[in-house]
Amino acid sequence: MAALPSRAIIREVGLRDGLQSIRTLLPTERKKEWLRDAVAAGQREIEVGSFVPPKLLPQMADTAEVLAYAKSLPGLFASVLVPNLRGAESALAGDADLMLLPLSASQEHSLANLRKTPDEVVAELGRIRAARDASGRKTLIEGGVGTAFGCTIQGEVKTAEVLRLLQALLDAGADRVSLADTVGYADPGSVRRLFEQALKIAGDRLWCGHFHDTRGLALANAYAILELGIARFDASLAGIGGCPHAPGASGNASSEDLAFMLEASGVATGIDLPAILGLRAKVAGWLQGEQTNGSMWRAGLPKTFRPASAAAATP
Amino acid sequence: MAALPSRAIIREVGLRDGLQSIRTLLPTERKKEWLRDAVAAGQREIEVGSFVPPKLLPQMADTAEVLAYAKSLPGLFASVLVPNLRGAESALAGDADLMLLPLSASQEHSLANLRKTPDEVVAELGRIRAARDASGRKTLIEGGVGTAFGCTIQGEVKTAEVLRLLQALLDAGADRVSLADTVGYADPGSVRRLFEQALKIAGDRLWCGHFHDTRGLALANAYAILELGIARFDASLAGIGGCPHAPGASGNASSEDLAFMLEASGVATGIDLPAILGLRAKVAGWLQGEQTNGSMWRAGLPKTFRPASAAAATP
Repeated sequence: MAALPSRAIIREVGLRDGLQSIRTLLPTERKKEWLRDAVAAGQREIEVGSFVPPKLLPQMADTAEVLAYAKSLPGLFASVLVPNLRGAESALAGDADLMLLPLSASQEHSLANLRKTPDEVVAELGRIRAARDASGRKTLIEGGVGTAFGCTIQGEVKTAEVLRLLQALLDAGADRVSLADTVGYADPGSVRRLFEQALKIAGDRLWCGHFHDTRGLALANAYAILELGIARFDASLAGIGGCPHAPGASGNASSEDLAFMLEASGVATGIDLPAILGLRAKVAGWLQGEQTNGSMWRAGLPKTFRPASAAAATP
Repeated sequence: MAALPSRAIIREVGLRDGLQSIRTLLPTERKKEWLRDAVAAGQREIEVGSFVPPKLLPQMADTAEVLAYAKSLPGLFASVLVPNLRGAESALAGDADLMLLPLSASQEHSLANLRKTPDEVVAELGRIRAARDASGRKTLIEGGVGTAFGCTIQGEVKTAEVLRLLQALLDAGADRVSLADTVGYADPGSVRRLFEQALKIAGDRLWCGHFHDTRGLALANAYAILELGIARFDASLAGIGGCPHAPGASGNASSEDLAFMLEASGVATGIDLPAILGLRAKVAGWLQGEQTNGSMWRAGLPKTFRPASAAAATP
């Protein structure tokens, strides 16, 4: 078998996917503290917020300020979610490093969640690409195909449709594409099959896997794409997150558990496990009453733990 | 990449590893009901108990009766754990289909848990083999190498020592060998590396992977050996289990979650998911106050779930 990748990136989505799914309104100063501590713990890519109307998601109302702060932190690659061209204009104004436009491959989920058909989202990505090119900014555009493994509303989502939309996003000007198991339906066999096919279409523009732990498989799914050589994952500190239109789909892959799996497996993430576990404890304290997830916070590190990042840092 | 195996076996260890780790004494009649329901749900291999002195583990005092009942259920392959020759004689008397002799590759864990050195356990396996051969029984002998990924007492357990003991067990007459992450230290990268090496030694006599979910990685670890073509796993209904000499190591891989992962991934287990989830609910009810684990009992099956076993049954 091929060797596992020697390095991987965990993009932290707790500040976006996590916070938008819970009731607690985390104050801007705490988001900044979270970002500061995350960078200190070695996290280098963070989705810092979402440029959606504050009426829809008051948790994200301070995204411009949080993005500006993130941009001031050396070495941090700051992503934002944008639902449309208007959001993209805000992302460009804030000089985000990457903006992620979510598309739902499930027609019914798309209409419920984004109030657009998938093809309307593809067209919007084309307009975002034109705006980006006109702006002179280097902000990357990622098209994220959600409900790629099925949908709680529609049920089955055909693989052919997922791959068609992936190609359409690239054709419309996406710099990167990713696949998300928005509702926690994926299993490692399906993950392997779909990502193998997606790799043939997108090659190294296939940027990321986004998995929810609804059925306990987020880490197994992440390992399945790691075996394919894909070494970039979304994850959320303390496993917070979910989807307002996907009942019971709570819980992203937990960043700290994923970092442990990768580092222990010999895949360097740059993340310092004791530091991220410390941050996890702090954030869980801020979110008292909210559901948090994951195992490492309870179990602690094995006595024998030797992080790959430490080995990678000493030649 | 090579295709995943089309079939896999989950050996249920809840009645042994699970029940021996908790305070509740499950009455013999309930154990029988569990076995009956498990077979009805499609489970075909079950570790039904342990022939240890009742003073040490009163939960296992009825193992002879439970084994006799298991042997009366058509199509069930009944394993028992035996700590020594005396236990093996009971297993042979009860005509068990397989007896598992646990060995701990960690010298310190071995002394604490088994009160023998690893090499003394290898010698005991030789005596068990002689007794089996003299008995005329067909009972298979499995040598199970535990703490194969490290130990909470000793810390590191060297790979060379694990492989040496695996070879020694085969040389002493084991029909099968297996590797166990007794304390929940394993990660999929280490699992892949160790099982790849073990396969070179044992070939298809490498029988089984036994993983604990202490750090949330039991299913990712199971998937890692599935990718190597190893399609036999220990798991415990509701994820009960642990190790009295491995603090915090509670929780086997959950049978129902593992069955979901495999069936959804296209690997037929013969297990009927709704039936095993029904049994899980019943057993969790019997074990009120004990810690149970897993995700499927809460999340339920995806709307789109198509079990591999259903496809395998219809040509």
